Amino acid sequence: MSLAKRSIAEAIGTFWLVFGGCGAAVLACGVPTTGIGYVGVALAFGLTVLTMAFAIGHISGCHLNPAVTLGLVAGGRFSAKEAPAYIIAQVIGGIIAAAVLYAIACPDLNAGIGAFATNGWSDSLNEAGRNAFGGKTFGMGSAFLIEMVLTAVFLFVIMGATDSRAPAGFAPIAIGLCLTLIHLISIPVTNTSVNPARSTAVAVFVGGTAIKQLWLFWVAPILGGVIGGVAYKFLACCKCCKCGKDEK
Amino acid sequence: MSLAKRSIAEAIGTFWLVFGGCGAAVLACGVPTTGIGYVGVALAFGLTVLTMAFAIGHISGCHLNPAVTLGLVAGGRFSAKEAPAYIIAQVIGGIIAAAVLYAIACPDLNAGIGAFATNGWSDSLNEAGRNAFGGKTFGMGSAFLIEMVLTAVFLFVIMGATDSRAPAGFAPIAIGLCLTLIHLISIPVTNTSVNPARSTAVAVFVGGTAIKQLWLFWVAPILGGVIGGVAYKFLACCKCCKCGKDEK
Amino acid sequence: MSLAKRSIAEAIGTFWLVFGGCGAAVLACGVPTTGIGYVGVALAFGLTVLTMAFAIGHISGCHLNPAVTLGLVAGGRFSAKEAPAYIIAQVIGGIIAAAVLYAIACPDLNAGIGAFATNGWSDSLNEAGRNAFGGKTFGMGSAFLIEMVLTAVFLFVIMGATDSRAPAGFAPIAIGLCLTLIHLISIPVTNTSVNPARSTAVAVFVGGTAIKQLWLFWVAPILGGVIGGVAYKFLACCKCCKCGKDEK
Amino acid sequence: MSLAKRSIAEAIGTFWLVFGGCGAAVLACGVPTTGIGYVGVALAFGLTVLTMAFAIGHISGCHLNPAVTLGLVAGGRFSAKEAPAYIIAQVIGGIIAAAVLYAIACPDLNAGIGAFATNGWSDSLNEAGRNAFGGKTFGMGSAFLIEMVLTAVFLFVIMGATDSRAPAGFAPIAIGLCLTLIHLISIPVTNTSVNPARSTAVAVFVGGTAIKQLWLFWVAPILGGVIGGVAYKFLACCKCCKCGKDEK
Repeated sequence: MSLAKRSIAEAIGTFWLVFGGCGAAVLACGVPTTGIGYVGVALAFGLTVLTMAFAIGHISGCHLNPAVTLGLVAGGRFSAKEAPAYIIAQVIGGIIAAAVLYAIACPDLNAGIGAFATNGWSDSLNEAGRNAFGGKTFGMGSAFLIEMVLTAVFLFVIMGATDSRAPAGFAPIAIGLCLTLIHLISIPVTNTSVNPARSTAVAVFVGGTAIKQLWLFWVAPILGGVIGGVAYKFLACCKCCKCGKDEK
Repeated sequence: MSLAKRSIAEAIGTFWLVFGGCGAAVLACGVPTTGIGYVGVALAFGLTVLTMAFAIGHISGCHLNPAVTLGLVAGGRFSAKEAPAYIIAQVIGGIIAAAVLYAIACPDLNAGIGAFATNGWSDSLNEAGRNAFGGKTFGMGSAFLIEMVLTAVFLFVIMGATDSRAPAGFAPIAIGLCLTLIHLISIPVTNTSVNPARSTAVAVFVGGTAIKQLWLFWVAPILGGVIGGVAYKFLACCKCCKCGKDEK
Repeated sequence: MSLAKRSIAEAIGTFWLVFGGCGAAVLACGVPTTGIGYVGVALAFGLTVLTMAFAIGHISGCHLNPAVTLGLVAGGRFSAKEAPAYIIAQVIGGIIAAAVLYAIACPDLNAGIGAFATNGWSDSLNEAGRNAFGGKTFGMGSAFLIEMVLTAVFLFVIMGATDSRAPAGFAPIAIGLCLTLIHLISIPVTNTSVNPARSTAVAVFVGGTAIKQLWLFWVAPILGGVIGGVAYKFLACCKCCKCGKDEK
Repeated sequence: MSLAKRSIAEAIGTFWLVFGGCGAAVLACGVPTTGIGYVGVALAFGLTVLTMAFAIGHISGCHLNPAVTLGLVAGGRFSAKEAPAYIIAQVIGGIIAAAVLYAIACPDLNAGIGAFATNGWSDSLNEAGRNAFGGKTFGMGSAFLIEMVLTAVFLFVIMGATDSRAPAGFAPIAIGLCLTLIHLISIPVTNTSVNPARSTAVAVFVGGTAIKQLWLFWVAPILGGVIGGVAYKFLACCKCCKCGKDEK
């Protein structure tokens, strides 16, 4: 299919990731007594990917994330030439989602949306009232380390679950639930990004600290994604282990 | 199979959607301490679709929802001539479910069922004591926008996951969990419909505001469903992109 | 495989259903703050079936439930002659599980196990402190109706998901998550049975009201199971609709 | 593939099990109001296995657990000669994960990590403030019994779900969600191990009671794993039941 159509699919998919994941966080996480909490937000982010991977996996591959696109380039699974179009589409789709979410949440609840699901550390967490550990929050070093490690394993799982030797058809389940797992671990640390497009989409509506800290949510996930993609490639490539099968 | 038999399957399936989804909301959501909350209700709605799609997908296609039926007509996947029978069956199945649920819940707990899981906005939310955001609720504009957007993506996912190029057999998982995701996002806004039959089924037992606001839960989901069906058709149809495969 | 071996598999599987489902309810549901609540118990029951259906589905069919065995007989999918051996094995496996659970929970926490996850209504719910609806509980009529309806749909889903026209291999997911859904709806009403072996297993350790009310959790689920099995058979059988395929 | 490469895959996979499962427990379980609780921790542990089984199942078999490796040896599915390399890799991968988790959690929250997700009973539970049953905790006998029983069923499910007669491709779902189920049952009793590598990884950073009680989390899971592996082998092997198929 044409790069234009595949990029539109990426924009729609990333719209869903940001609208569904950040929407659940903004609208339903903190509702008293029956609210969905971090488990619900983690499920929501994962299910945006699971559902879209079944819907557009056969169209665009369903990356929905610049760190995934660049990790797959590093792992030899995606063309570097097509990466810019994908990444631009992902950021645009995410920003449109944040705009629609803003239109729904903010006129009606102008004081109720917390930090609009932005990512950050220290000051950012304090501003959003997220210092859940007895007044302590996580610093920049912890934020960088956990975003990098989680994105590295994320790409490792993506590479493995879409390997031709893995069971066919299950990759959307593996990858979607991997994103759920990543959120179960790290929402208290950075509010969980592992996705520069998702971080950018909400940060542009909030500004301030969210924009000042945005660089980390491009650098750490992309660095982690490249590490994960390359690691799987070296581990799983059969050229060097004489089992007679080629990884591709 | 005959249209009559397929319509009966749709009625049974929509019975399950309303009995299971609204039943979980009415009976188990607000139980103190151990209640299932919105995460449990979201899972319940999604699992009604997941289970029925495996049980009757091969019989009727398992729409269970007039917005799905009309969205599939718009997307070229279902016959307009058969849509009325399906929609009537869905509404009847849903109403029977609400009647059984009423028989279980209301004699024993005549003051304990809240709003009987009806959909609505502003006044409706206030009447049901659902103003979770510091006394603020969502207005009609937000209700319309979110119901339309969510149903549009729902149909987009349904069209994609049942595309012949998607992994075979997984559509019930993708579609069921998509409905779970939709509830994780929007229960605080409208109590989540995206399904006119589900809204109608419980509204007829509650009357009042629930009936006055019912129109929106026909118009917005059907409009969204048509948009989603058409959008996928235009995006994914290969006639125009020369990849040599036909979407159907 | 021999009936003896298949019956042993049923005993092991029902051991897991009772040990896992009732164990989660007894040990982890009511833990303050971080306890698993009804969502966790619902997941636990469903996952016992999902995991065992993948493990022994190819050995015994993985019924784990007299109402399932008799519903499948009624639906023409299982031999009436073999049903008694299956049912006896299921009850024995369940009782062994309750004994092991009793050995773990009761010496250490002799006042902490509530009603040991027994099923019941009115008095039984009051004794266990489960009157969650402002001092009101559910009566016998509601208990009978909901157990019958839920088991009927359960068998309908089991028949459909194991139909040769349904996607192959997915039945354990559909059936396991259907049991999760059933618990999400009905734990507050009867503590959820839909399974006479599960009810019997824990009732024999608790005695009193649990034994007095045990008859309902044999009659209602088996009646429902037979209705569900027959309903699917009549709806889905293709002999009468001339599509040329036999339901088998 | 070479034993070295497969062992590296086991180390990476066990890194993910410990980092994801214990990370969720340490960072997100006890956050007030919106924390993930035991349901979230149970999901996290299960999803580490589900995701890695799709990613490296085709490389190393994805054991991630000495009790699994030895249970599979006992069940005739894995070579005893290769077990030591797997087990050493699992322990090393787990310890590296605990080190990274320690680096993230401990400088920033030096008083907020509870018991660092170690396993134990009685004194250990009291030290970590986990006496959730009215001041009572579980003793060594209960701890041994539940760890042994749960690991036995875990191996039984692993053997069954990877049997050539089970539906192909679904084993990662069955096995991952089995680990989720195991946690739903037993976190209040021992904080759930069923995995000597996972227990060892965090115990070496905490010392004291965690090290003193570590022996049980090697002995009970391995004993249970061997029982489960052998039990499935005897039950399912077709040599003795003349159905003409070999269990392989």
